[in-house]
Amino acid sequence: MATQQEISAFLAKEFPQSKCVIESIGDCTSVVSHAVGFDELRPGGTVSGPVLMALADVALYTAVLGKLGLVALAVTSNLSINFLRKPSADKAIVAHCKLIKVGRTLVMGEVMLYSRGDEKPVAHVMGTYALPAKT
Amino acid sequence: MATQQEISAFLAKEFPQSKCVIESIGDCTSVVSHAVGFDELRPGGTVSGPVLMALADVALYTAVLGKLGLVALAVTSNLSINFLRKPSADKAIVAHCKLIKVGRTLVMGEVMLYSRGDEKPVAHVMGTYALPAKT
Amino acid sequence: MATQQEISAFLAKEFPQSKCVIESIGDCTSVVSHAVGFDELRPGGTVSGPVLMALADVALYTAVLGKLGLVALAVTSNLSINFLRKPSADKAIVAHCKLIKVGRTLVMGEVMLYSRGDEKPVAHVMGTYALPAKT
Amino acid sequence: MATQQEISAFLAKEFPQSKCVIESIGDCTSVVSHAVGFDELRPGGTVSGPVLMALADVALYTAVLGKLGLVALAVTSNLSINFLRKPSADKAIVAHCKLIKVGRTLVMGEVMLYSRGDEKPVAHVMGTYALPAKT
Repeated sequence: MATQQEISAFLAKEFPQSKCVIESIGDCTSVVSHAVGFDELRPGGTVSGPVLMALADVALYTAVLGKLGLVALAVTSNLSINFLRKPSADKAIVAHCKLIKVGRTLVMGEVMLYSRGDEKPVAHVMGTYALPAKT
Repeated sequence: MATQQEISAFLAKEFPQSKCVIESIGDCTSVVSHAVGFDELRPGGTVSGPVLMALADVALYTAVLGKLGLVALAVTSNLSINFLRKPSADKAIVAHCKLIKVGRTLVMGEVMLYSRGDEKPVAHVMGTYALPAKT
Repeated sequence: MATQQEISAFLAKEFPQSKCVIESIGDCTSVVSHAVGFDELRPGGTVSGPVLMALADVALYTAVLGKLGLVALAVTSNLSINFLRKPSADKAIVAHCKLIKVGRTLVMGEVMLYSRGDEKPVAHVMGTYALPAKT
Repeated sequence: MATQQEISAFLAKEFPQSKCVIESIGDCTSVVSHAVGFDELRPGGTVSGPVLMALADVALYTAVLGKLGLVALAVTSNLSINFLRKPSADKAIVAHCKLIKVGRTLVMGEVMLYSRGDEKPVAHVMGTYALPAKT
């Protein structure tokens, strides 16, 4: 319903501070990445949890936009993250999102987060978006 | 087990980029706030979700440190946030955290987030911290 | 919007197999209990997790009905439970529910579960109910 | 680490009231089903939510036992369920579980629940099990 270019432009306006990069969009899916540098790291060389949460939120939003079009008013109602493994300090984080329910008022999706190139996920996120009532 | 001053110093080292301010610490509780300005806002005048999540995470960590001492290796294993209401664009966010279980390997706590001065919460967070095994 | 008697009758019809007892209903709150006997126990003398989840779900539903009236079509969309302590084998479980958001399409509430007479909770539940669209 | 026969016998002793049937066990995976009849249905012809939660919990526990052996003391610490679609009234529920983290103190896994034969899931569950400390 919305192309990768349209969504990238839309997000650049909605989340001007975000460094997330949309890598691909499919039917109910998205792949979004986030570079890792000084701002994303905590002492000990791990990627900060809020960076992972923010990336997962953008990946979910991107998949929603890809499926439903540029619904500016979709809002996150729940986001639940399980931290699985310590991410690499020198690799980007890549989020693979899949929507598992697209209803009239709620959309639910899950996101697996990886350090780029690694097979084992660093975190899993389940999210719910509420859609504005149709008028 | 650790005072507000000790924890503030510890967090300044652990999360150098964080703007969170510890307002108080009690037995299994903490109050932590975060100023809201350009960096925290999204178009439409709402505070960004990841700012709320990051603040809740710090509030939980602060309460854990206050209860158990400076356990640098405590790590978040799950964080689940419900967004309840749109926060004010011109008020700081204040997080009130209460630990509801302090076990040997897991600590669980909840956080209510408010726009300062408002009675109704903007978000609710439930979090789980895993503690390092004693040796 | 609905009295304790109306809700008890409604639930007896909706959940005929349920042993839950509504103890009280307030504005956005409910207290519901469940006796503990052979059917609720697991070897080792602990109350089965699904019994706690089922009770919390009924407590949330009861609070929703108390606030909004007999909305038969409200459905649970998310329920997240944290198990905190081993419940007593010989005490009923009592659920204290409080709704923290009552929106047009979503209601969110939390539930603390106790072994009757104990001060420390055995479990915490956060739940979301989706309301049918108004027509 | 434990075979399907060993686990079935173990669960029959641990959960004597359960009607769950283990269909298969793999490396970090399990498939468990639950027949649907009068006891599992609610008015309107839908499978009761607590039945889905209980089945998911057994599927997670089964996968944990399959991976780690008969660890009687593993306990659920968190279980979060998203209800996606109304299950069929006349089909068994089948749970497909996959562990996504097997740590020393925590095991995390996800479960997709289906009405047997249907492609679209009726619910998604994320669960965390705490393992007893080694001595």
